[in-house]
Amino acid sequence: MSNSFGKIFKISTFGESHGAAVGVVVEGVPAGLPIDVAFIQAELDRRRPGQSAIVTQRKEADVVQILSGVFEGKATGTPIALMVWNEDAKSKDYSHIAQSYRPSHADFTYDAKYGLRDYRGGGRSSARETLARVAAGAIAKLFLTHHHIQVQAYTSQVGSLQLHTPYTALDLSQTEQNDVRCPDPALAAQMIDLIKAVRKQGDSIGGVVSAVIRGVPAGLGEPVFDKLHAELGKAMLSINAVKGFEYGSGFAGVSMLGSEHNDLFYQDEQGSIRTQTNHSGGIQGGISNGEDIYFRVAFKPVATLMRDQDSVDAQGNPVVVSGKGRHDPCVVPRAVPIVEAMVALVIADFWLRNQLTRLL
Amino acid sequence: MSNSFGKIFKISTFGESHGAAVGVVVEGVPAGLPIDVAFIQAELDRRRPGQSAIVTQRKEADVVQILSGVFEGKATGTPIALMVWNEDAKSKDYSHIAQSYRPSHADFTYDAKYGLRDYRGGGRSSARETLARVAAGAIAKLFLTHHHIQVQAYTSQVGSLQLHTPYTALDLSQTEQNDVRCPDPALAAQMIDLIKAVRKQGDSIGGVVSAVIRGVPAGLGEPVFDKLHAELGKAMLSINAVKGFEYGSGFAGVSMLGSEHNDLFYQDEQGSIRTQTNHSGGIQGGISNGEDIYFRVAFKPVATLMRDQDSVDAQGNPVVVSGKGRHDPCVVPRAVPIVEAMVALVIADFWLRNQLTRLL
Amino acid sequence: MSNSFGKIFKISTFGESHGAAVGVVVEGVPAGLPIDVAFIQAELDRRRPGQSAIVTQRKEADVVQILSGVFEGKATGTPIALMVWNEDAKSKDYSHIAQSYRPSHADFTYDAKYGLRDYRGGGRSSARETLARVAAGAIAKLFLTHHHIQVQAYTSQVGSLQLHTPYTALDLSQTEQNDVRCPDPALAAQMIDLIKAVRKQGDSIGGVVSAVIRGVPAGLGEPVFDKLHAELGKAMLSINAVKGFEYGSGFAGVSMLGSEHNDLFYQDEQGSIRTQTNHSGGIQGGISNGEDIYFRVAFKPVATLMRDQDSVDAQGNPVVVSGKGRHDPCVVPRAVPIVEAMVALVIADFWLRNQLTRLL
Amino acid sequence: MSNSFGKIFKISTFGESHGAAVGVVVEGVPAGLPIDVAFIQAELDRRRPGQSAIVTQRKEADVVQILSGVFEGKATGTPIALMVWNEDAKSKDYSHIAQSYRPSHADFTYDAKYGLRDYRGGGRSSARETLARVAAGAIAKLFLTHHHIQVQAYTSQVGSLQLHTPYTALDLSQTEQNDVRCPDPALAAQMIDLIKAVRKQGDSIGGVVSAVIRGVPAGLGEPVFDKLHAELGKAMLSINAVKGFEYGSGFAGVSMLGSEHNDLFYQDEQGSIRTQTNHSGGIQGGISNGEDIYFRVAFKPVATLMRDQDSVDAQGNPVVVSGKGRHDPCVVPRAVPIVEAMVALVIADFWLRNQLTRLL
Repeated sequence: MSNSFGKIFKISTFGESHGAAVGVVVEGVPAGLPIDVAFIQAELDRRRPGQSAIVTQRKEADVVQILSGVFEGKATGTPIALMVWNEDAKSKDYSHIAQSYRPSHADFTYDAKYGLRDYRGGGRSSARETLARVAAGAIAKLFLTHHHIQVQAYTSQVGSLQLHTPYTALDLSQTEQNDVRCPDPALAAQMIDLIKAVRKQGDSIGGVVSAVIRGVPAGLGEPVFDKLHAELGKAMLSINAVKGFEYGSGFAGVSMLGSEHNDLFYQDEQGSIRTQTNHSGGIQGGISNGEDIYFRVAFKPVATLMRDQDSVDAQGNPVVVSGKGRHDPCVVPRAVPIVEAMVALVIADFWLRNQLTRLL
Repeated sequence: MSNSFGKIFKISTFGESHGAAVGVVVEGVPAGLPIDVAFIQAELDRRRPGQSAIVTQRKEADVVQILSGVFEGKATGTPIALMVWNEDAKSKDYSHIAQSYRPSHADFTYDAKYGLRDYRGGGRSSARETLARVAAGAIAKLFLTHHHIQVQAYTSQVGSLQLHTPYTALDLSQTEQNDVRCPDPALAAQMIDLIKAVRKQGDSIGGVVSAVIRGVPAGLGEPVFDKLHAELGKAMLSINAVKGFEYGSGFAGVSMLGSEHNDLFYQDEQGSIRTQTNHSGGIQGGISNGEDIYFRVAFKPVATLMRDQDSVDAQGNPVVVSGKGRHDPCVVPRAVPIVEAMVALVIADFWLRNQLTRLL
Repeated sequence: MSNSFGKIFKISTFGESHGAAVGVVVEGVPAGLPIDVAFIQAELDRRRPGQSAIVTQRKEADVVQILSGVFEGKATGTPIALMVWNEDAKSKDYSHIAQSYRPSHADFTYDAKYGLRDYRGGGRSSARETLARVAAGAIAKLFLTHHHIQVQAYTSQVGSLQLHTPYTALDLSQTEQNDVRCPDPALAAQMIDLIKAVRKQGDSIGGVVSAVIRGVPAGLGEPVFDKLHAELGKAMLSINAVKGFEYGSGFAGVSMLGSEHNDLFYQDEQGSIRTQTNHSGGIQGGISNGEDIYFRVAFKPVATLMRDQDSVDAQGNPVVVSGKGRHDPCVVPRAVPIVEAMVALVIADFWLRNQLTRLL
Repeated sequence: MSNSFGKIFKISTFGESHGAAVGVVVEGVPAGLPIDVAFIQAELDRRRPGQSAIVTQRKEADVVQILSGVFEGKATGTPIALMVWNEDAKSKDYSHIAQSYRPSHADFTYDAKYGLRDYRGGGRSSARETLARVAAGAIAKLFLTHHHIQVQAYTSQVGSLQLHTPYTALDLSQTEQNDVRCPDPALAAQMIDLIKAVRKQGDSIGGVVSAVIRGVPAGLGEPVFDKLHAELGKAMLSINAVKGFEYGSGFAGVSMLGSEHNDLFYQDEQGSIRTQTNHSGGIQGGISNGEDIYFRVAFKPVATLMRDQDSVDAQGNPVVVSGKGRHDPCVVPRAVPIVEAMVALVIADFWLRNQLTRLL
């Protein structure tokens, strides 16, 4: 029951790193939505291995195929199944870890849980699963665009290199102009250098992805357990390597006084009720208030290193795990479209849920 | 659909601040579990208003009543309904906000969502709803205790006063020895002074609650969307006033190299596979690895101030909102048992879910 | 997870026959719906014991109390909790069955499942649980009435006394004019006589409840698993003592040729697309087509007899179970409002679900 | 949300009659279960078009492909995706119905619901979707066989030709020995003749499938809404063309007295508690009691006729719908494996759910 996400706009993913295919079934897409396959593919290309010098050099075309739910270019209201074949399944690369537990990977915990595991490339625990999220998220984005909602994520930190400029002072159209997806070109160059240096050492480094959602109408999100930020937080924390989530004022808000933190209401010139500040991050009581929603997501350094590491096998015997294959030295650049996809899925779901709130 | 939490060990809460009652229906409690009503009440007393000098001075006995699901002291396997009457429902206190939007409260967003709201004391958005969580969480704790799992939360920051000692070096049995629930007595005294000073100014202040879970067996949590930390994060973010969540190395882990961050496996003297460090926070690939699980939760300053604040009414006209009533100047001391309750619910649910993973 | 019904308009019931209370939490009621408490009570009164000479003579006022979710007479969009105290909890009546398995009751199966049971009056397996359904169903009816949808059930068979007149030729306003709730007064009198005769023998008898739903717009119901009639069927089969369900042509349709059974389309004078016949029972492909929906529900004879019956105890030893207490000799008259309640819940849920089907 | 079935052992199907593929994602299969692909294919072959002279003569190989969740022949605990390509997608056959509503098909209701439809071969409403159920059901059968539970369905009626022998007096190993899947060879021959005669007239005929489940331990099923027979009933009613469901004594039980209908308990020679009769159909209070579970499912005559029928188009204009293509004159023979598949899914799900009932 853990392979689904969303309640109305709902996805169910399947597939292992080195199985036949990775895919997703998307339910709840309103009938009539135009499905732009080229856009879905373009989103997948943003996530694709080998897209730049600072990501893994694996070669996977990741061409999406629609199996159902679309007729004459439109969603029919039935489940949309999307699939990508696994082409680069070099299983031999992984035989050396069949009996070893790679440090800070899911090898040990999968064995502990299931009593067996598909050890090829991490199996289901591989970040390759996020491909399915990006494909489904692209459909959610098509839906949100129809409702004038815009989701933008960007790299705001790599290692200790942090972008301190608030999103409101950034030109986010610059995000896709460099390989690390940081909208500040100068900082982006430093980040790229850092990632290259780390890779040269066979090491890896963490980072932060920030995101902003504009155009969300007031009223999305549910009281109590399914607060909008709680579901966003779960969505982010479900992405591989994520260690933390904060929205609005976040952890820094802890040190503020209520009189500093409260966002005072006013009526703008169009007659809308707005807030003067936005420490709330666009969400109050778990429900969107019409202001921008923004948050930060912490990613740990990738666990796979191009170095020897001490570990144990399934019997507890000491082994040495050697780094092999082609891996990302920093997950953040490719995480940007994944963050956006998960955001789009959350917002699309809440948008639909919100239609049922009042007596029609 | 937003009033339920959990999949097997599942709760559904109901009730407004000033309605007749607040309650919860708990499903999935295994038949035969002894239900210690005195323990449930003791947990509610830890959350109760008026318990100390630094929390709200409202008088509510919050006596729990079991309506169903328990027979001869044991759970029967049918839903356990728990209820607390609302005794201190002074609705007159709230008439002044019927037409005003209190800054950074849920007044505006509830109106935007539902077109009407129960304005008395915040209605459903009131933290009084967490009473239901604590009652249900107490039952989850009884279940976890049966399986030798221990949940402990404590105050680790109030405003800028931060406890830097790691949990492993703290004596958590001291947590309940002071009003602010910080296990460091000296820092606790400073925190209490700070809260009192803030209150004297009619202001409020934020804080951080830290938590540790010991005794969780390896294997709890699900791959992909329902990762153990993702569900813990959602649980925490669903608590009123929470702005952030991080586990293990958290946001600080971003700046680490993979070679520093990876937790190397070894076999201990009992033959168990363990990790030398625990940056993973006891969770790898979304699944517990048997090490301690620990995390931090950021709470913003309480929105209700004992001051006048500028705001607007539902028509957008300027109004002044005056602080009245009795409120918490800092939510953190009473949040400690709420955090523990939500943790217990998450772990109990995953414990049960994990029973179905392997072929029996 | 078995105590909830519905996906959007959703209920969760709790309570045992002889526990403190029986109740229900209703979620998904659109904010703004006027909640007529007198109507809810009137529906409960139709289900109430002691209402006539042919039902159980237990004395229970069954006064409903609203605990949450209603403010100034309207639904607020938050969960509506409804509760009825158990007043007639004469536990002593049931001590004789604590160790015995009553034939065709749930005593044995509850023990087999849970290892213990609340034996007082059947505990959770008692039809007293349906009280919660009727209360929630009354709210669903208020919603449906708002949308001009009408649900009517009636007794169409008791023992071998069967009403052969199709519903279209009946005056359903007569249903509530007699104790057995059969709209044919002459047959109703025979049914009442039969039930009295059966009771005099300490025996019980089965029956059929028929139902018709008018005013359902085309489009309700979902393809594949949640077909409208599949959910109606589950709803009916979940009512105590139900053994069968058929809709439209039902089992009789088996013997028909396709050329007889097919309902031909035509356009009526108002320009609506209609069918000339209605063997489909208002549902095609699992989705309502705008015609009347009608179906039949079979109820077995009540298991509790006022006679001695051979049985065994939990250890398998032979025992004699003696009939005691006050019981319904035929469940059908009181089942009519229960059937209506479950229908209303299904239709309300699908009405809301259907709002999300097309691009808005 | 209507494309999934089950809570723990859970399937989600996708695919249209003439889209790229039909498939299913199966979750909750315990890790370690051997997955016999040949058995899955054999079950699909029982449902396959063209298998005999009395079913549709369409040519579809329906070769199943496993996309994920199986490693070295065993389930890994992750989702098992199964897919069959649509090979016989002759879309031209369906252009004539793009604008017409076939009588008693889902054409009109899909349009009413979604505003558009994939008219090729019925799209999602085609019985081709049941292919996914049979593939998933085969995995459920593998699980049940591991637990010594046996599911057998058979044709018990075609038109007015009814098999009156109770299942206990039948040799069900004969079921697969004839094309109509009736275990009585003489009656089977008559049924086959009837179906051929009906087909010669371009007409269709209904039927009944009966089923028996042996080896179900006492305790499966949940009180209240998810009663075992309620979920079985929903499962059956979700199959295309089903009009009714009855279990145990069914509709006939209505006319019985309680003293006739009650199943008296006794202890058998092995010390098990059994019932002398089985009007309960193996289920009491919604929970299995260890006796055989048996039920009957009514199928209407297939709506597609090889004749001209009057109808309307989407604008309400009169049209004539002509029968074309290759269709089943009676759905029952191919429905037998579909009924078994849905039964297997229900029982596997409840088997797993029941593991969580008691304190371990």
